[in-house]
Amino acid sequence: MVATDELLALFTETRAHSETICAPLKTEDYVVQPIVDVSPPKWHLGHTTWFFEEFLLKPHYPGYTLFDKNFAFVFNSYYESVGKRVVRTDRGNLSRPTVDQIYAYRTYVTKHMASLIKEHMTSELESVLEIGIHHEKQHQELLLTDIKFILGNNPLLPAYNRAFKENISESHELEWISIEEGMYTIGHQEEDQFCYDNEKGVHKVYLHDVEISNKLVTNQEYLEFIVQGGYQNAMLWHAEAWDWINSNQMKHPLYWHKINDNWHQYTLSGLEPLNLSAPVTHVSYFEAFAFAQWKEMRLPTEFEWEVANGYFNWGQRWEWTESAYSPYPNYTKPEGALGEYNGKFMVNQKVLRGGSVATPSKHTRCTYRNFFQPNLQWQFTGIRLAK
Amino acid sequence: MVATDELLALFTETRAHSETICAPLKTEDYVVQPIVDVSPPKWHLGHTTWFFEEFLLKPHYPGYTLFDKNFAFVFNSYYESVGKRVVRTDRGNLSRPTVDQIYAYRTYVTKHMASLIKEHMTSELESVLEIGIHHEKQHQELLLTDIKFILGNNPLLPAYNRAFKENISESHELEWISIEEGMYTIGHQEEDQFCYDNEKGVHKVYLHDVEISNKLVTNQEYLEFIVQGGYQNAMLWHAEAWDWINSNQMKHPLYWHKINDNWHQYTLSGLEPLNLSAPVTHVSYFEAFAFAQWKEMRLPTEFEWEVANGYFNWGQRWEWTESAYSPYPNYTKPEGALGEYNGKFMVNQKVLRGGSVATPSKHTRCTYRNFFQPNLQWQFTGIRLAK
Amino acid sequence: MVATDELLALFTETRAHSETICAPLKTEDYVVQPIVDVSPPKWHLGHTTWFFEEFLLKPHYPGYTLFDKNFAFVFNSYYESVGKRVVRTDRGNLSRPTVDQIYAYRTYVTKHMASLIKEHMTSELESVLEIGIHHEKQHQELLLTDIKFILGNNPLLPAYNRAFKENISESHELEWISIEEGMYTIGHQEEDQFCYDNEKGVHKVYLHDVEISNKLVTNQEYLEFIVQGGYQNAMLWHAEAWDWINSNQMKHPLYWHKINDNWHQYTLSGLEPLNLSAPVTHVSYFEAFAFAQWKEMRLPTEFEWEVANGYFNWGQRWEWTESAYSPYPNYTKPEGALGEYNGKFMVNQKVLRGGSVATPSKHTRCTYRNFFQPNLQWQFTGIRLAK
Amino acid sequence: MVATDELLALFTETRAHSETICAPLKTEDYVVQPIVDVSPPKWHLGHTTWFFEEFLLKPHYPGYTLFDKNFAFVFNSYYESVGKRVVRTDRGNLSRPTVDQIYAYRTYVTKHMASLIKEHMTSELESVLEIGIHHEKQHQELLLTDIKFILGNNPLLPAYNRAFKENISESHELEWISIEEGMYTIGHQEEDQFCYDNEKGVHKVYLHDVEISNKLVTNQEYLEFIVQGGYQNAMLWHAEAWDWINSNQMKHPLYWHKINDNWHQYTLSGLEPLNLSAPVTHVSYFEAFAFAQWKEMRLPTEFEWEVANGYFNWGQRWEWTESAYSPYPNYTKPEGALGEYNGKFMVNQKVLRGGSVATPSKHTRCTYRNFFQPNLQWQFTGIRLAK
Repeated sequence: MVATDELLALFTETRAHSETICAPLKTEDYVVQPIVDVSPPKWHLGHTTWFFEEFLLKPHYPGYTLFDKNFAFVFNSYYESVGKRVVRTDRGNLSRPTVDQIYAYRTYVTKHMASLIKEHMTSELESVLEIGIHHEKQHQELLLTDIKFILGNNPLLPAYNRAFKENISESHELEWISIEEGMYTIGHQEEDQFCYDNEKGVHKVYLHDVEISNKLVTNQEYLEFIVQGGYQNAMLWHAEAWDWINSNQMKHPLYWHKINDNWHQYTLSGLEPLNLSAPVTHVSYFEAFAFAQWKEMRLPTEFEWEVANGYFNWGQRWEWTESAYSPYPNYTKPEGALGEYNGKFMVNQKVLRGGSVATPSKHTRCTYRNFFQPNLQWQFTGIRLAK
Repeated sequence: MVATDELLALFTETRAHSETICAPLKTEDYVVQPIVDVSPPKWHLGHTTWFFEEFLLKPHYPGYTLFDKNFAFVFNSYYESVGKRVVRTDRGNLSRPTVDQIYAYRTYVTKHMASLIKEHMTSELESVLEIGIHHEKQHQELLLTDIKFILGNNPLLPAYNRAFKENISESHELEWISIEEGMYTIGHQEEDQFCYDNEKGVHKVYLHDVEISNKLVTNQEYLEFIVQGGYQNAMLWHAEAWDWINSNQMKHPLYWHKINDNWHQYTLSGLEPLNLSAPVTHVSYFEAFAFAQWKEMRLPTEFEWEVANGYFNWGQRWEWTESAYSPYPNYTKPEGALGEYNGKFMVNQKVLRGGSVATPSKHTRCTYRNFFQPNLQWQFTGIRLAK
Repeated sequence: MVATDELLALFTETRAHSETICAPLKTEDYVVQPIVDVSPPKWHLGHTTWFFEEFLLKPHYPGYTLFDKNFAFVFNSYYESVGKRVVRTDRGNLSRPTVDQIYAYRTYVTKHMASLIKEHMTSELESVLEIGIHHEKQHQELLLTDIKFILGNNPLLPAYNRAFKENISESHELEWISIEEGMYTIGHQEEDQFCYDNEKGVHKVYLHDVEISNKLVTNQEYLEFIVQGGYQNAMLWHAEAWDWINSNQMKHPLYWHKINDNWHQYTLSGLEPLNLSAPVTHVSYFEAFAFAQWKEMRLPTEFEWEVANGYFNWGQRWEWTESAYSPYPNYTKPEGALGEYNGKFMVNQKVLRGGSVATPSKHTRCTYRNFFQPNLQWQFTGIRLAK
Repeated sequence: MVATDELLALFTETRAHSETICAPLKTEDYVVQPIVDVSPPKWHLGHTTWFFEEFLLKPHYPGYTLFDKNFAFVFNSYYESVGKRVVRTDRGNLSRPTVDQIYAYRTYVTKHMASLIKEHMTSELESVLEIGIHHEKQHQELLLTDIKFILGNNPLLPAYNRAFKENISESHELEWISIEEGMYTIGHQEEDQFCYDNEKGVHKVYLHDVEISNKLVTNQEYLEFIVQGGYQNAMLWHAEAWDWINSNQMKHPLYWHKINDNWHQYTLSGLEPLNLSAPVTHVSYFEAFAFAQWKEMRLPTEFEWEVANGYFNWGQRWEWTESAYSPYPNYTKPEGALGEYNGKFMVNQKVLRGGSVATPSKHTRCTYRNFFQPNLQWQFTGIRLAK
């Protein structure tokens, strides 16, 4: 069990970090929702706060008064068991509560939570608190990717933060890591460390021989795929992907712009010439798969990735795997509303492993299972090949 | 020809009034677009400014420098002949330019326009200037109706301005004004006053006997239509209207809320018990028509309305007429981009006559032809019966 | 009042003619519904039969037994007051009742109707019978246009009937018929002849000077509009039309095919080289309007057309007018279900006057008001200009 | 290698069986496509024929003349590498080629194929021929499920064949088959028997302890799930499933009808009272998963199913598994167009194992991997539980 002091420090630092992320924003940037997958930054700030209020303060803080009884309706994301809510597509239609009101809400809840942690902590609450903290960390990553989408789809292409580094080239030589056929153990095993329910259920898998690249695919390699007609060759794509690229006229990763015949990329530090040696990013699973087909290779499964992860650097891009997001053997859904956290998304999504330049510190780990629909591009996704 | 001083005063007062309308808003309220018909207030402020820059300053102000060359892309509404633009559905996705930048843009353009009016006026420019002023007045009405939609569809239902009066009951007795069969002249005849192209082309029409009510239909009367099953009786509705009420589950005018069995109405001054004696508002043409059918009466044509208008008070509600929006005989579309102002909307829309509580001063007149699609409710529309 | 013999003859001949129209069809052709506006031929055959059964035999034939009690559900078109029905979009999903069953249904109803006409006729029934007959004639036109769509959108492009003549060139010189300003009487005046409710309500209109062409616009003229960029020039189109041509990639009338750089047209007699001197057909109102704009002319109103109709030949193409479909002064909707025949479509449609190569004999007249939505092309529509 | 005689017999019998399946149909039943997943029977008959013509006769029969060069456009299903085709949604819009023409096409191709088999067989062709035969067998199952949909969604609910038995109750006692933790071999191992590419790549998997039911879930059990509010309890469903049941108002399996408070089921032999002891069918994966959640159990994975299959009877229902459809380790996509057969569907689909009352003889086997999207109900799907 983690010491209260440590938890309080982690909580406080996490709460502060969300606000640091938003510091460069104009008030208007907090409000908009250009596509359904992107939530307005003010919604993220309010929703992460509501989570602490709903699951900790309201049931466990003696005599707690809600900051505003209407906020649950506004800031519940998808917890069916907790009551009605603004539908996801409408988040960008809400001008109120204002950004100032939401910051006041944050201050109020943070202060009460600090009291709760100091004065009323139990081991049962602790596990909810840890989920609350990591929940907010997850939204910190979404804050950055959603801010990027909001600014990167504005015709004025404003920078978010000139100092933000998205593209770090991997300078080492390409090598193929061999994993030998055999039995391996998968899942989160350090009992004293936090992890999500979907990583639990440690179990054995049998893997066949495989080699995994120690480098991510670069912009240069991906550009070659484009130039050689990758987006026009149906044989490389899943049937559903082919429909997707045709009905959306997809021709390149998100945020790529061809200006006067030169490829550029919008980054959080503004529009830049495409960095050819940097790892490709903002590709969908569909694109990652087609690229691998074109290379006559494949994507690793999440098990292969987990077994090999000690032999390469990871954490710059969320790496698409071939694995569909499914429950591990003996997966147990937590009781109550928190049972909705992971389990109900285990269909029609693909697992991503690793982490990204947008992932906050102390959040990810080698057993972490991220997941998104196969057509989505707006996360800092990348490609690692296997063969 | 209007004196320069008068024009300058009208221009200055009009520019100031748009900003007065927005004074009660929070920054966030300027940004959102909950439905496609509603534009963000900051877009209205920028678009009306762009109109002066595009059609007057850019071509006619010697040595004029654009405030920002990217703004044309952001603030063009629908002028195909002027260049590309943000599609209408995406206006609410734009956090930039910020509200502050747009106010700076307004100040810059207003200042240069004042110089233009004082120093470079010609009679040719004057007619464009008048359109620009009335164009901004038209957007002032839209600002109010769009603000109402933005706040009135927020789950917190914030008031816009407690002092705003939407509902003024008509206390006089109902009387039927008789118009005798015969020939009448229609269209704008005062040559020295501003009007739009669609009111010109003075022409004769032959009217048959008709009686027109000297009162608008009240909430009380409309409520009776609801209670007696008006929304469930297919025989009262156009086929297209019946599809519309069924696929949208329409059961009452926009902004009506039944709370604990009592009808309330969201108004710009906040949520209020429904004022039964006030004129019904926020009904579509489809609803106005069905109500008239239920009364075994009909809506007046725009010609009947224009002929009778001197015999009743108008200006509180835009009054749906039975007339489709079509060109008058000898209608001439102006040359160039301003030819897109009215003519290209003359299909599948209905004419509304009069004005509303949201119409700015000096804007409407008895020959004014407003027009909207028959399913729209978000304007301050109302019903006057004929038989 | 028409003599019973005459009515019986008209009835019998009308029933037979529907079957003659369908004689060239294969069983499969009776079944499909490629777009919502097109109904399967077997549905037309059943629906026109149901009309007689529902409105005449069921209420007025002593001891009448329904052919099949489920057919009302299948063959009601849009009579809300008569009960539930298969939704329009699903007509092409119905393989049963089979074509043979529907012909048996026709025989059964025709036989009983003949008895009804001979033995139980009253003047009240007579007016319903006349509507029933003209209703079937209206569907005869739809049968031909729907068959054309079914075969003309099949990749094999089969001919319907090699002898069918769609394109008859007008050989006379173009002249402009002048209509003088003044008062005119509009509407159906021969009391002893059948007409629809929407033509009644004879009334006066005042027309201003106008000139109307004595020739329809030809394929040659329309081709010039295409070649000169008509479909690319936004200034010629209504705003709604411009969206329509862009989202549907419209570039020419329906059934035109460019094969090896030569224009062809699918006709009911098969694919043919485009006949340049024939009147253009299968254009929407949107296209007719844009063409007229390009010519710096306009379409006539339905009143101008009615006044001028004696001075030109008509009947080859349904001629789009500038008039929206609205009720005439003193329009009275018939009581009961037949009140749904016309009135409920009087919004968002345009009036067409005349008739076409697909119109059956004794059906149309100079006061006849046909109506369709402005984007529809599948009828034999055409263009006559006014100025 | 299979003897030519045997292959010829299998081919001949397979071709004949497709026609036997269609024998009870009316011509009209061959034509319609009520939903995109259902193809018209005549399309199935033509498409399976085109497969033999395209992949065997055209490239390998000396001097072969195509029956009709336009048929490839009509009957190609999804082979991007083979050329353009009628889009899937439009198959029900095609009245031509007629049913008679398609039967003539079948006769022509069957005859030439028989010559090919007898005179020009090579081992390379043999493997394509086997795929062609099993391809037609797969379409025989679809023919039955599509015919059921076509007739079962017709308001007249006609029976297909009174003798067809869909519902065979399992009379044995429920027992739980234990599979012990350990290593198992998966995939098709009999080298001399036909299987699809997706079953190859024999490999090892490690399974943990599991128990699998020896009985399918019955209608009685499923009805209890309905009665106890299964369709109203969000906690049982995937998030995507919850959207699906709400936007489609799902409340029971496909083909269930509540008539006067008694549940009925449309079957290929007509409408019948629901047979409570029969295995439930026409449920989606979403429903199978929610049912298992409600039972506090789960669905087996496809590996568990394959290991246990010898201990229970299967073949009456396609059994949804928890496994997403993914490539086996070392899966190799065949070269050329036949590489499109399976691989391109390996995303967003779930594996089903077993077979159904509609599966033709000699088609399925214990390693067979069927796959469908998780929302589809129109196959004869069923539920087997694991815990």
